[in-house]
Amino acid sequence: MNDLAWSGAMALAVEAGTRAHGTTSPNPPVGAVVLDPSGALVGTGYTQPPGGAHAEIGALAEAGDRARGGTAVVTLEPCAHHGRTPPCTSALVDAGVARVVFANADPNPKAAGGADVLRAAGVEVVHLPTHVEALRAWLHFARTGRPHVTWKYAATLDGRVAAADGTSRWISSPESRAEVHALRTTIDAIVVGTGTVRADDPRLTARGTDVTRQPLRVVVGTSDLPPGAHVLDGEAETLHVRTHDPDAVLAELGARGAVDVLVEGGPTLAGAFARAGRIDRVLAYLAPKLLGDGPTALRDAGVSTITDAVGLVVEQVSMCGPDVRISAVPASGR
Amino acid sequence: MNDLAWSGAMALAVEAGTRAHGTTSPNPPVGAVVLDPSGALVGTGYTQPPGGAHAEIGALAEAGDRARGGTAVVTLEPCAHHGRTPPCTSALVDAGVARVVFANADPNPKAAGGADVLRAAGVEVVHLPTHVEALRAWLHFARTGRPHVTWKYAATLDGRVAAADGTSRWISSPESRAEVHALRTTIDAIVVGTGTVRADDPRLTARGTDVTRQPLRVVVGTSDLPPGAHVLDGEAETLHVRTHDPDAVLAELGARGAVDVLVEGGPTLAGAFARAGRIDRVLAYLAPKLLGDGPTALRDAGVSTITDAVGLVVEQVSMCGPDVRISAVPASGR
Ligand SMILES: NC(=O)c1ccc[n+]([C@@H]2O[C@H](COP(=O)([O-])OP(=O)(O)OC[C@H]3O[C@@H](n4cnc5c(N)ncnc54)[C@H](OP(=O)(O)O)[C@@H]3O)[C@@H](O)[C@H]2O)c1
Ligand SMILES: NC(=O)c1ccc[n+]([C@@H]2O[C@H](COP(=O)([O-])OP(=O)(O)OC[C@H]3O[C@@H](n4cnc5c(N)ncnc54)[C@H](OP(=O)(O)O)[C@@H]3O)[C@@H](O)[C@H]2O)c1
Repeated sequence: MNDLAWSGAMALAVEAGTRAHGTTSPNPPVGAVVLDPSGALVGTGYTQPPGGAHAEIGALAEAGDRARGGTAVVTLEPCAHHGRTPPCTSALVDAGVARVVFANADPNPKAAGGADVLRAAGVEVVHLPTHVEALRAWLHFARTGRPHVTWKYAATLDGRVAAADGTSRWISSPESRAEVHALRTTIDAIVVGTGTVRADDPRLTARGTDVTRQPLRVVVGTSDLPPGAHVLDGEAETLHVRTHDPDAVLAELGARGAVDVLVEGGPTLAGAFARAGRIDRVLAYLAPKLLGDGPTALRDAGVSTITDAVGLVVEQVSMCGPDVRISAVPASGR
Repeated sequence: MNDLAWSGAMALAVEAGTRAHGTTSPNPPVGAVVLDPSGALVGTGYTQPPGGAHAEIGALAEAGDRARGGTAVVTLEPCAHHGRTPPCTSALVDAGVARVVFANADPNPKAAGGADVLRAAGVEVVHLPTHVEALRAWLHFARTGRPHVTWKYAATLDGRVAAADGTSRWISSPESRAEVHALRTTIDAIVVGTGTVRADDPRLTARGTDVTRQPLRVVVGTSDLPPGAHVLDGEAETLHVRTHDPDAVLAELGARGAVDVLVEGGPTLAGAFARAGRIDRVLAYLAPKLLGDGPTALRDAGVSTITDAVGLVVEQVSMCGPDVRISAVPASGR
């Protein structure tokens, strides 16, 4: 066994964790695999919904006796504390694994220290740093105490989110819309301003195959919601937060166990989040169209001169059908 | 010799033609190679500045006797007419080439028919359709009688070309600016509105290594240019066209032999070109920044509802330093 073999096993653990993404908040969607002493895969697990087993427990259960002397590969440092479930470190030691490889240290002071506990019990511990997309939001939450915010918008190439007459269906392609529906199944809450509810009357549900659970719908703003609005249709829970303060919204969502939040606009609300420094990722779907008029993607972000622009770093560019999809994160947050 | 070998030779011809790009208008920047009967490369040529030799002539001269029984591979159908130089078809027949492979038919009725002339002279003629970037503008010009217009802009991810206070230096990265300077060496004219001259006082010259010739600077608008403006500095020729009509601008430029035109804004002028249907390519440099205020890339494009948006097709997306570069063409123009 060497770094290369562990990377392969880590890729399997990452994939397992991805299956849990969207079902575990406020817990992290972790993935784990167990290899026997010869390096053969003998168990796979991922975090079950709150109250259920952690990833390591599932993988160890599948491995049974074959875990003894083997290696556990986990996307997050195993927890050492008694929460709703017993500590995973104990389960790993009891199962007799010789080595634990993990991708991300646990920034949560209550749960951290798992690596030390394992080492003290004579287990070899290897930190193999790996980007785990499914853990992005949770790691942010664990570090900052605030839910992770992705600001997603669909705009024309020239930055318009609707035409002059207010029409905006559909700016982006069916492929992009399908991708956003899939994204909605992995997040905990979708946030819009009252302006978007008034203008577009969106349903804000995840639609498509494989939808087992709906994110919380959140509308921000002091005005009343129009009676009969889709967000009041009962298809998913809806929260109306009568504030203009993004931090108040995030505190409320955090208290409800939301870790991964998708701000879907409009421009006023997005501007408020940008001004507060509360955008942790920008996800832009740019449709190859020109409008030359209509609302822009972002308004009132508190920037008046070019040197004060919010600086980002592009982390991924890809095509989504005919559209260009750009994912970017704050330059300072790297 | 087969299609695959011809493709390889065509790639060399395309590369040769690229060297001529920007120096040949109103003539096409063509590239040519000559292979001897065994398929060995024996000559390379590209269009010389107006009045000079065509690509085939240079390649044949280098090949000399070795062209006999060989193959000429050319990016454009050889011309059959007497312009400032004798027809290339005669030169090819005189050199005794057995086969001519060309990438693009000549849409110019005066010059066309070269393939037929060659066939009548017993030469095998093969059309091997290939996209030749250096010929894009000229082919458009030959088909429509109008110079090809690339609208280039640098914007933030949210579509702003300057901040609220008017500052715009520098929205895009040094890498993007260097690329634009390289692009300027390949085009015939750079066009801006009087608003951009007033706001930014740009020099509109190609700067960097390998700059041997400056494009014509063109300012569109009815107001006078500010005395002392950089565009009046004599570093390159400047034309002030006192009109609001894009077609009048293009007619004037076409009459001066310009084939490849770069519209560099601002939003009002770009809107006028979009409204007139005179944008043949959009080249967007999107900087990973957010402004939330300031002028947008495009204004008054004559679109008021989403279904009337100018439809484009993305032809290329790439990174240019930290920026995302998107090249798109009208959906209808495909
Ligand atoms: N293409 C897309 O991705 C997309 C997505 C969403 C929306 N849109 C478009 O965006 C347009 C609507 O824009 P919008 O800006 O009105 O929508 P918005 O941002 O969703 O809603 C604006 C409202 O948000 C509330 N708000 C919350 N925090 C605020 C703050 N800090 N400051 C000020 N107001 C705050 C205010 O509500 P109260 O007045 O009730 O207090 C305000 O009126 C529509 O044309 C819609 O189609 C496009
Ligand atoms: N980032 C970039 O890529 C970029 C590039 C260029 C400019 N900019 C920014 O754009 C801003 C300037 O915007 P702008 O719109 O004033 O610039 P502009 O489009 O360059 O100039 C506007 C002027 O163009 C003339 N014009 C020509 N055809 C017209 C028509 N059909 N209709 C109306 N006017 C026509 C008018 O001049 P007359 O009034 O003289 O008739 C008009 O005032 C500045 O902030 C500048 O920094 C950014």
